[in-house]
Amino acid sequence: MEFSSKLLEKAVNEMSQLPGVGKRTALRLVLHMLRQPKEQTLALAEALQTMRNEIKFCKSCHNISDNELCEICSSNNRNEEIVCVVEDIRDVMAIESTSSYKGLYHVLGGKISPMDGIGPHDLNIETLVNKVKEGKVKELIFALSSTMEGDTTNFYIYKQIQEYNIETSTIARGISVGDELEYADEITLGRSIVNRIPFESSLKS
Amino acid sequence: MEFSSKLLEKAVNEMSQLPGVGKRTALRLVLHMLRQPKEQTLALAEALQTMRNEIKFCKSCHNISDNELCEICSSNNRNEEIVCVVEDIRDVMAIESTSSYKGLYHVLGGKISPMDGIGPHDLNIETLVNKVKEGKVKELIFALSSTMEGDTTNFYIYKQIQEYNIETSTIARGISVGDELEYADEITLGRSIVNRIPFESSLKS
Ligand SMILES: [Zn+2]
Ligand SMILES: [Zn+2]
Repeated sequence: MEFSSKLLEKAVNEMSQLPGVGKRTALRLVLHMLRQPKEQTLALAEALQTMRNEIKFCKSCHNISDNELCEICSSNNRNEEIVCVVEDIRDVMAIESTSSYKGLYHVLGGKISPMDGIGPHDLNIETLVNKVKEGKVKELIFALSSTMEGDTTNFYIYKQIQEYNIETSTIARGISVGDELEYADEITLGRSIVNRIPFESSLKS
Repeated sequence: MEFSSKLLEKAVNEMSQLPGVGKRTALRLVLHMLRQPKEQTLALAEALQTMRNEIKFCKSCHNISDNELCEICSSNNRNEEIVCVVEDIRDVMAIESTSSYKGLYHVLGGKISPMDGIGPHDLNIETLVNKVKEGKVKELIFALSSTMEGDTTNFYIYKQIQEYNIETSTIARGISVGDELEYADEITLGRSIVNRIPFESSLKS
């Protein structure tokens, strides 16, 4: 692609770093910005800068937050003895939108995936195990997507916390195997939390 | 969508202003940014700001340019008597990549489209007619995509410059009717410029 402007080329190149955005899509988006009022692009740029500079992760559950502790962790209306283990904050958003769940969360930040070079130490697993060790947690709900990586991650964590004898469950698979949590409809997802099953019995199937 | 962070929400909302980017895609892109080194997002934001603040449009052909006159208009190796009329700068890039064409361009900035509220005065048509009036142009090549809007725009311009008795042509339709120019392969596109036909004969078909 030959550009008539270095400024344009730079903008297109930076945009095309985003996943799923090729050079052509990036060019289409950037040309769209040039047709819109200047303020709109400047607002986008500023929102990205501010977010990247100032965003925090909850020091307890690793959810994205504007404060040290996220709203869920600092709420008085949540059951602190139940912790739902999820892959990323989109899963927190999906489960929260069902209004079925009143426990806390723990955001791992991904799944164990040797293929992608992601090991246990790249994820927020140690802080989760520590919570269990400290005796604060009575039940852990595994809510990772049911893929090979999800199952591997569940099992890895399960092994780490097995000795502490807490309850473990996985969300009921009203959600079809291999599906991403965030695309499940709210009713199915809500029901699958209510109908969660002991983790050990999920290993037998 | 319920966000755990105002900063995140703002970034997602701004991203989802882009065409074809829904809230879910915007969230996916923004979460990706949060997993990448900070510098990458800041570089993107800065590239967009700089582009939007400093980019110029060539005062002769309206191509995007870093200078008053674009590289094509200010080159000594181009035939200034031939002007190729295109919809947007992606078409300039597509034709330039064929290396078949040595005339100049005129970028309209769109097509006449009453459905989208785009009339002749929203496009760079007046400056084109002025070029013809001033006697600088011997041939005008219409290279808009052959859709109803493209045909309407061609015909509107044709009517404006008819009295000045210059040659007019349209690019040969090796490119299939209704196809966007920028997706044509280089050989087809190059050939269609070389084999251009008089505009009047394109009206008969
Ligand atoms: Zn939290
Ligand atoms: Zn120019």
